[in-house]
Amino acid sequence: MKTLFVVGLGPGTPDCLTPQGRAALESAQVLCGYTTYLELIQGDFPGKEILTTPMTRELERCRMALESSAAGKTTAMVCSGDAGVYGMAGPILELAGEYPEVDIQVIPGITAATAGAAVLGAPLMHDFAVISLSDLLTPWETIEKRLDLAAQADLILCLYNPTSRRRKDHLRRACEIVLRHQGPQTVCGWVRCIGREGQESRVLTLEELKDEELDMFTTVFIGSSATENLGGRMVTPRGYQNKV
Amino acid sequence: MKTLFVVGLGPGTPDCLTPQGRAALESAQVLCGYTTYLELIQGDFPGKEILTTPMTRELERCRMALESSAAGKTTAMVCSGDAGVYGMAGPILELAGEYPEVDIQVIPGITAATAGAAVLGAPLMHDFAVISLSDLLTPWETIEKRLDLAAQADLILCLYNPTSRRRKDHLRRACEIVLRHQGPQTVCGWVRCIGREGQESRVLTLEELKDEELDMFTTVFIGSSATENLGGRMVTPRGYQNKV
Repeated sequence: MKTLFVVGLGPGTPDCLTPQGRAALESAQVLCGYTTYLELIQGDFPGKEILTTPMTRELERCRMALESSAAGKTTAMVCSGDAGVYGMAGPILELAGEYPEVDIQVIPGITAATAGAAVLGAPLMHDFAVISLSDLLTPWETIEKRLDLAAQADLILCLYNPTSRRRKDHLRRACEIVLRHQGPQTVCGWVRCIGREGQESRVLTLEELKDEELDMFTTVFIGSSATENLGGRMVTPRGYQNKV
Repeated sequence: MKTLFVVGLGPGTPDCLTPQGRAALESAQVLCGYTTYLELIQGDFPGKEILTTPMTRELERCRMALESSAAGKTTAMVCSGDAGVYGMAGPILELAGEYPEVDIQVIPGITAATAGAAVLGAPLMHDFAVISLSDLLTPWETIEKRLDLAAQADLILCLYNPTSRRRKDHLRRACEIVLRHQGPQTVCGWVRCIGREGQESRVLTLEELKDEELDMFTTVFIGSSATENLGGRMVTPRGYQNKV
């Protein structure tokens, strides 16, 4: 059988890559992915054939990986975080029907929601939504509607792609939508370069978050009405204290 | 400094535990946790002092771990999946103020949402909500409201604790709420015993999911309006195909 692994690297450093993911990368003859992610791990896996395309050519990259597997080379497509959360597992499986001889194995990794949460404390201890603020593939109206309903549901929000070069005001607009349902003192947090050199984080209020200038390497957390700032840590109690 | 690690083991087998998590467990003198999770890893970490309590005594268990660290023994509290998603990171940080001498480090693991998604295909490729159907600590009315708004937002849903001994009809009621906003043919899936012996999974329609009899070791996925069944795999296209 011809195999294509789709591997989530986790936040970036090798100590976040699972043994299952490492075994897949070791067994692969070809590594495929966006240059930045390949650079994070390439030193650990020398002697592999490398396939890469620029950032926006996602489908082209997926097809290269499928063609490589179909040609008989065990191939691994690498993604940062988890391959199934805004990653390459989806587009590869969309194209899979054209390559019935390739066995596709998705190997999960630690996504920014849980990696970032661990840096801030425990913000995701209760029901939460993960929403991307990128309108490259999703109409902004859809994103606004989702933010509005998720905030109304009092879900904790984890925001991916909070900003981009093209649209600087996405985060501000997202905060304004959440402010329809949550107070300005709602506890929020952000983490930049999770688990990598230069990691930064801050716990702040929703009012403060609205004016924060963040970049695309940042993951943002907006608390529910239950979320607290406990000594600088962002924590959403699940309710064990009430039970006792 | 006295250290308490809070470690997410991932779905269960050692090949899903990150090197970071493994290093924490190796450096710990004391391992603390619910018996079932400790049994999954105990063989790999011999010679540790073991602290355990029955399932429902969460706060007691957290306090035991904090006391152990405060007494000078490096301690690790273990959780399945990710410690910050319905796990022990929250209650430990809620009690942390009483133990200022203990340095608490949360180490993320792979949660059932992403581990289960990888088994089914790529259901979580777009915005999603994680909601627990357990009403042990959350009023059922709150859960119903969240399901209703999340389905209205056309979020993919990942449901933890879909059933319990006490309430067998939670999943059916959740499906009925989603059916207010999504069609009966909406693509769904479930995974049982993710990454462990006896793993099972199924891709099915929302109408079929309503009548499915699942147990508490199962994670359930309900697609958005965009989710497809591609050759038996549950995939939510993100829209790369439209872009080209």
